[in-house]
Amino acid sequence: MQIIIPFSSREPKTRLDSVLTSEERRAFAGVMLEDVARAVELAGSAPIILSTEPIEVPWEVIVDERPLSLAVNGLLENSKGPIAIVMSDLAIVTAENIKQLTEARGDIIIAPGNLGGTNAFVTYSPEFRVDYHGASYLDHIKMAKKIGRDVVVVDSFRLATDIDVKEDLIEILIHGEGKSKEWLSERGFYLEIQGENRVGISRRGSRWQ
Amino acid sequence: MQIIIPFSSREPKTRLDSVLTSEERRAFAGVMLEDVARAVELAGSAPIILSTEPIEVPWEVIVDERPLSLAVNGLLENSKGPIAIVMSDLAIVTAENIKQLTEARGDIIIAPGNLGGTNAFVTYSPEFRVDYHGASYLDHIKMAKKIGRDVVVVDSFRLATDIDVKEDLIEILIHGEGKSKEWLSERGFYLEIQGENRVGISRRGSRWQ
Repeated sequence: MQIIIPFSSREPKTRLDSVLTSEERRAFAGVMLEDVARAVELAGSAPIILSTEPIEVPWEVIVDERPLSLAVNGLLENSKGPIAIVMSDLAIVTAENIKQLTEARGDIIIAPGNLGGTNAFVTYSPEFRVDYHGASYLDHIKMAKKIGRDVVVVDSFRLATDIDVKEDLIEILIHGEGKSKEWLSERGFYLEIQGENRVGISRRGSRWQ
Repeated sequence: MQIIIPFSSREPKTRLDSVLTSEERRAFAGVMLEDVARAVELAGSAPIILSTEPIEVPWEVIVDERPLSLAVNGLLENSKGPIAIVMSDLAIVTAENIKQLTEARGDIIIAPGNLGGTNAFVTYSPEFRVDYHGASYLDHIKMAKKIGRDVVVVDSFRLATDIDVKEDLIEILIHGEGKSKEWLSERGFYLEIQGENRVGISRRGSRWQ
């Protein structure tokens, strides 16, 4: 099965701008991509990066400048067999999770992201297309039903956790097993109990503190 | 196995005060408790509610006024066999999830909540005690290791999703299968795409809109 990881290197992760500089955000997006690609490798597959521009990584890269949904649909249209699409910011994903996706049986297998996203899916149906706009998880289920395909949902906290905002970094420090956690720790990020007994995240020795 | 659901009826869910009145929050906490208890029943067990004060529910109730950690530890100390503790605000939990917990094999089985919480656990070890303060998931793993017990982690988005803030209600509207979803819909809550293509939640016909 082809496992594709879409990646955008242009101003990635803008919602992390309260804690990371533009340069850091670009670097961090690359480190998260690496963690996801390594998980795919550990699961026994060769990841293919679908990137908005040429990047230097030890994996096959397909460059497509178009927006995410168009680029992914381009691949789906031309695919000759089952295909998996896994987001590049699933920083706590494991090889086990990748296997959950690739070993599930169904026409279309979806791992929802929190707040309605579609963090990963596998399609065995050549007609399936994506639209990442809005509550894409619900839309993708509807679309699968419309083309008469059954959907299997993978219930995983690790697959549901994409990294968009500062609070998401907390999950990496708690559950991360790869370079993203290391990268954050090296840059001074640490867990801290904040008001009303909640877990927060802070950064040492920087203007972001 | 005893399955305990701790419940606090005094000013519950205060962080939902931007969208629900105090009375509504109390009612909603009860509805979520009902969903969790029904999931336990559907999984073939009889839930026991550990409540801070007497409540009228069709399940066995143990009243203990003490704070959560003390009340749960009181039960763990006096327990004669394996025991499961499942939070009452896991509004999208299913019978399948409860079985994941009760059928897992290990000394201590933990389902992490998002942001470091411990949303559910099972202990086969009579010495295990809880401390829900702070990043309790990490603390509970440390405590289990300290008493020489192995930990199995259950990776589930549904088990990881506890309902604390407005955004959490989005998950109920998307993934809910019980009364909590119905309750929110009846009170005018609906999904709405907000700035930058994000899924938000709004409320019809009320001063909360």
